[in-house]
Amino acid sequence: MNTMWICHSPQPGGPEALRFLTAPRPQPGPAQVLIRVGAVGVNRLDAMQRAGNYPLPPGVNPVLGVEVGGEVIATGPEVHGITVGMRVAALLEGGGYAEFACADHRHVVPVPPDWDDIRAAAVIETFCTAHETLFELSRLAPGERVLIHAGGSAVGSTAIRMAQAVGAEIATTTGREDKAARLRAMGVPHVLNYREGDFATALREIWPEGVDVIEDFVGPAYLARHIDLLRWRGRLAFVGLLSQGTAELDIARVLTRMIQLRGFTLRPHSVAEKAAVVARFRQRWLPELAAGRIAPEIHAVLPFRDAAEAHRILETADNFGKIILRM
Amino acid sequence: MNTMWICHSPQPGGPEALRFLTAPRPQPGPAQVLIRVGAVGVNRLDAMQRAGNYPLPPGVNPVLGVEVGGEVIATGPEVHGITVGMRVAALLEGGGYAEFACADHRHVVPVPPDWDDIRAAAVIETFCTAHETLFELSRLAPGERVLIHAGGSAVGSTAIRMAQAVGAEIATTTGREDKAARLRAMGVPHVLNYREGDFATALREIWPEGVDVIEDFVGPAYLARHIDLLRWRGRLAFVGLLSQGTAELDIARVLTRMIQLRGFTLRPHSVAEKAAVVARFRQRWLPELAAGRIAPEIHAVLPFRDAAEAHRILETADNFGKIILRM
Repeated sequence: MNTMWICHSPQPGGPEALRFLTAPRPQPGPAQVLIRVGAVGVNRLDAMQRAGNYPLPPGVNPVLGVEVGGEVIATGPEVHGITVGMRVAALLEGGGYAEFACADHRHVVPVPPDWDDIRAAAVIETFCTAHETLFELSRLAPGERVLIHAGGSAVGSTAIRMAQAVGAEIATTTGREDKAARLRAMGVPHVLNYREGDFATALREIWPEGVDVIEDFVGPAYLARHIDLLRWRGRLAFVGLLSQGTAELDIARVLTRMIQLRGFTLRPHSVAEKAAVVARFRQRWLPELAAGRIAPEIHAVLPFRDAAEAHRILETADNFGKIILRM
Repeated sequence: MNTMWICHSPQPGGPEALRFLTAPRPQPGPAQVLIRVGAVGVNRLDAMQRAGNYPLPPGVNPVLGVEVGGEVIATGPEVHGITVGMRVAALLEGGGYAEFACADHRHVVPVPPDWDDIRAAAVIETFCTAHETLFELSRLAPGERVLIHAGGSAVGSTAIRMAQAVGAEIATTTGREDKAARLRAMGVPHVLNYREGDFATALREIWPEGVDVIEDFVGPAYLARHIDLLRWRGRLAFVGLLSQGTAELDIARVLTRMIQLRGFTLRPHSVAEKAAVVARFRQRWLPELAAGRIAPEIHAVLPFRDAAEAHRILETADNFGKIILRM
């Protein structure tokens, strides 16, 4: 049997556009490993790609899914450090919604022996994104004030845990009271429900001097308020675009406050860049995860056949934390 | 005689608003040195302040001038490393258009014995600004492509020399053919006269993949073109605002290309921040200057009484490089 089940959307559309098809099992390239996928993380990016809003570069696997947990069952001749039988978490260029997937060996991390594939699939993309944006880009430091939007999202909740780990002062936003309650239970001192009033006005009352770092999943709709909130040497990372279009930038304010704005997206990283990202995750956060000092929020684990339901949950923001599909 | 001549604009206005007045000689604070000013650098900021377009924080010396060359004639009790009789270059909070000025000792650099005060006044603010923006903020690396606007300005021409020193590929802009000729004579391969056509279109033909780093003195009017020109991980520093107002920012492009935008302004740096800036200048560029491997462009040296004329030259951009007033 050299075929497998895969899931993707041959025609762009809503969650109902997802199709389960058979395809040949992939063969690992010289520097790749072949993974029997046990679980795959569901990302907003997957939903965008399904809907036709994420044009893939030529040659990229059109099957959805950029992160998996599973077991290595074959390795290319140039692979080192990863061997057959290892349980791993892996970042993929694509092709994770499948029974088998290939990954560059530098994008693969062996996980602790007591982890299942679900936990492996739940941490890698999320932790890499939160770490790269909060620390590699925004250089969040102990004692600084950070505004993390979408606190109930997978990356948002992880960013909160990381900011707590380094001793930052945290504010977060959410649009639902049940999520606000969970965020308070996580120990976030300032939880702002944006449906109950302008988050920026509320934050200005809490922190009159403004904020040092903003983790921004919203983009254009909030830009003016963000520039106004950022203090001297404030940093903002654009991690997502929950709002659309362009926005006015007050460059004079950016200049006179030495503000820094940076975009982040993991998928187009080169193989070497992504390897560096994974190495930082492995060095900085895997030990913390293994020791139980930090953990991902997992909202739901659904069977692979319910991929469409997983997308519906994500697109209505009904989740608090990660959604995982298990094979 | 405990008085001295100073120059500032009690009423905002054009260059003719400048007045020469007598004032008490300043007394150095505990961590300050008193400098007999031999020469003072003229900056665009001075002209903005004279015109009333640079509101000073409360308590700051209203006399113009943020960089001088001269001799240390007194030191406060907490000063170390700088002694009476030293010839120095100094960054000031203000008060440089004067016969005597005080500076924090950490903002003062002893200059090589063969330098005159003119050279000392010509390098410090310019070299600090170009270094901080090109290297500390934008991390310009050897072989990268950098667009440096206003190549004939003091900071622009210095940034070109620094970019040459690290082996970057350089393009620059100017609005005058005589300056273009000088820039070509400096060895800049791509000199674009923005009065003869759109610089961005011309640059796209030279570098189809775009640019890595932009040193931007223009701001709003060029923002859209800059975002379009910046390639993957491209960095832009806002160093000046020759155009006014706001501008539309294409955040999606910033995100998907991992673009970084940063504002820079030296004057509001804290004492400690400015001390770090001066230390980097001293460590990285003073030896290069002393050895003659890099040099400032000096357009004109005028007597102190011609401060208004110096401002006129700067405001009509008739200068190529620095304008200095000598006492």
